[in-house]
Amino acid sequence: MRILVLGGDGYLGWPTSMYLAVKGHEVFAIDNYLRRTVALATNSEALIPSPNLEERAQTFKDVTGSEIGVRIGDLRDIKVMEEAINGFKPDAVIHYAEQPSAPYSMMGYDEALLTLDNNLKVTFNLVWSVINHRPECHIIKLGTMGEYGTPEIDIEEGWIEIEHKGRRGRFLFPRQAGSLYHTTKIMDTDLLWFYVRTFGLTVTDLMQGPVYGLSSDETELDSRLLPNFHYDDIFGTVINRFLVQAVAGEPLTVYGAGGQTRGYLNLRDTLQCVELAALNAPEKGTLRVFNQLTECFTVNEIAERIQRTGNRMRLDVKIERIDNPRKEAEQHYYNPVHTGLLELGLKPHHMTDEVLDGMLETILPYKERINRGVIQPRVRWS
Amino acid sequence: MRILVLGGDGYLGWPTSMYLAVKGHEVFAIDNYLRRTVALATNSEALIPSPNLEERAQTFKDVTGSEIGVRIGDLRDIKVMEEAINGFKPDAVIHYAEQPSAPYSMMGYDEALLTLDNNLKVTFNLVWSVINHRPECHIIKLGTMGEYGTPEIDIEEGWIEIEHKGRRGRFLFPRQAGSLYHTTKIMDTDLLWFYVRTFGLTVTDLMQGPVYGLSSDETELDSRLLPNFHYDDIFGTVINRFLVQAVAGEPLTVYGAGGQTRGYLNLRDTLQCVELAALNAPEKGTLRVFNQLTECFTVNEIAERIQRTGNRMRLDVKIERIDNPRKEAEQHYYNPVHTGLLELGLKPHHMTDEVLDGMLETILPYKERINRGVIQPRVRWS
Repeated sequence: MRILVLGGDGYLGWPTSMYLAVKGHEVFAIDNYLRRTVALATNSEALIPSPNLEERAQTFKDVTGSEIGVRIGDLRDIKVMEEAINGFKPDAVIHYAEQPSAPYSMMGYDEALLTLDNNLKVTFNLVWSVINHRPECHIIKLGTMGEYGTPEIDIEEGWIEIEHKGRRGRFLFPRQAGSLYHTTKIMDTDLLWFYVRTFGLTVTDLMQGPVYGLSSDETELDSRLLPNFHYDDIFGTVINRFLVQAVAGEPLTVYGAGGQTRGYLNLRDTLQCVELAALNAPEKGTLRVFNQLTECFTVNEIAERIQRTGNRMRLDVKIERIDNPRKEAEQHYYNPVHTGLLELGLKPHHMTDEVLDGMLETILPYKERINRGVIQPRVRWS
Repeated sequence: MRILVLGGDGYLGWPTSMYLAVKGHEVFAIDNYLRRTVALATNSEALIPSPNLEERAQTFKDVTGSEIGVRIGDLRDIKVMEEAINGFKPDAVIHYAEQPSAPYSMMGYDEALLTLDNNLKVTFNLVWSVINHRPECHIIKLGTMGEYGTPEIDIEEGWIEIEHKGRRGRFLFPRQAGSLYHTTKIMDTDLLWFYVRTFGLTVTDLMQGPVYGLSSDETELDSRLLPNFHYDDIFGTVINRFLVQAVAGEPLTVYGAGGQTRGYLNLRDTLQCVELAALNAPEKGTLRVFNQLTECFTVNEIAERIQRTGNRMRLDVKIERIDNPRKEAEQHYYNPVHTGLLELGLKPHHMTDEVLDGMLETILPYKERINRGVIQPRVRWS
């Protein structure tokens, strides 16, 4: 297939581009380095130095013989999007090109506006370019499980049948998110669902939980092919922060009570899910939604697992509770359905001790590069 | 009260500003003439010439002795919004400042982008200016019943309790709109609801049906105080279009089967509702939603009423069915709850023969100004 990856320099975009290219797809990746720019501006750079996207593609070609087409461009500019869609004529577009940090979106007006403007405009430009130049193209959009929030009822895969006063209707599952970033993803969904109904677009929305891991078959080939690893409070997810705290000899800092439950998945599983979605397009003119996660953990459970991992490596890991900088439920019901991708053939890689050990081993050589000042919360929700 | 009206030059904004000023409130109105500019660009100007906002305010002062503060400025510019909020220090803000035409939002990329960008950015700037400068201010935001679409179940007032697999949760009533314009109002709701939860804003969302009428106690004082009356396919709602077709001696053109049902209300009732919302603010830190309508009609019922009205005036009115330019259900279930505003004291003005007669009589002197070329659909949904 011809697959266009928007946000191809990202934590997921780069490993996805490599995975798909090795599988024999024709891959073209676009990025405007927004994450790198924002990380630089907020003193939140990745732990492991990563070459730029053109250097990565060259290294990948040298190592594997496979090619990834690359362009640096800003997809908020409709001309850049149209050239990509009309020039490359993709069968599927994987849309990762969003400002992905919840804390960044909560820093202040400018950061919130950048998040709103970037995320909606890229999605909007994608919709219009596909309508005008490639209406048969399958849009695979990365949503997030965070769009659902933590409701009192089971989270279905995107849709829910509601019985009310003796009548029934089918609706998008109600969404209610915990950050402005997550709210822009809800707004993306509104936009895509409207244009699916009205212009017959074909869309898969992958409602993804937090992803962890640095390893895929491709990233293991050469350290220059590793994905970006952020451990700070702005770009680092909880697993990364805890792993780096363990390496740095600092206590793992749990936000509040630590009962916050989320559905996680291994980087290798994101790659599988995205390809499975591409190979199995939904019926034309539909919005298909999958909940993309493999296992649920509380923050406390993750802290305990990483403590065990660290202690196996004699790191003497402590756990500490700190004030929660976010506004979120710290103990709540959480039961998301996630069968759709398993039915398509997903073979999960679970968060085993070996996986966590492997992550720690990858991080350890970079211990001296850790900036301890950026791990604790720098952004508060109010 | 000190009340700021955003979009104070609009069909509703101007009569609202006058109504509140006469009631003794201190009123400040801002507008960037977006509707006038777009109407000019699409050859969709109002039937009755209307003086600009500064002239209107001067006439209003001459006639009533009451004052309305006025500023021409673009609220997409955060500086303009902040000056308004911080300078005027309103107790309530009434937010009408959106691109309001569904057909305009469906014309093409540029028009859709303008709608998305204007509507979200003004709401976003309002949120941030209130957070930073006037957190106790009550935001009264005009939503639309169109956000709900035409679901198979009863439409509750903003919220619904869902029972699912033996558990219960309370959610925003699911929204699914029929145009990009209406979709931007859903996205506004997402934005406001997020910031209500996170920063404790106080918001009333008035989910309004199509408004009809030219008369309020204030507009009747002087023809220069009349609201804008649009009858074209882009800005004219179905009632206006039918009235003008009756006057022009053209058949009333029903889109498709004509079973499309909506909840309507008289301009006088919008004015009441907005003041009732302002005088009865919800609890701090909550999002209150009212469905703002008084009667439901199908398009066929409206056509028949206007036919009767026209025939009473010997206009010999015919009704004709034409291809529906929109994508919408032409026969559907529709049962919206609308008790909240009645409980606050709303006294409805129904769509009586006298009301329709009065509208026709206001329009008749402008018969020669009717441009017959702009009444039929110029915009199709696909």
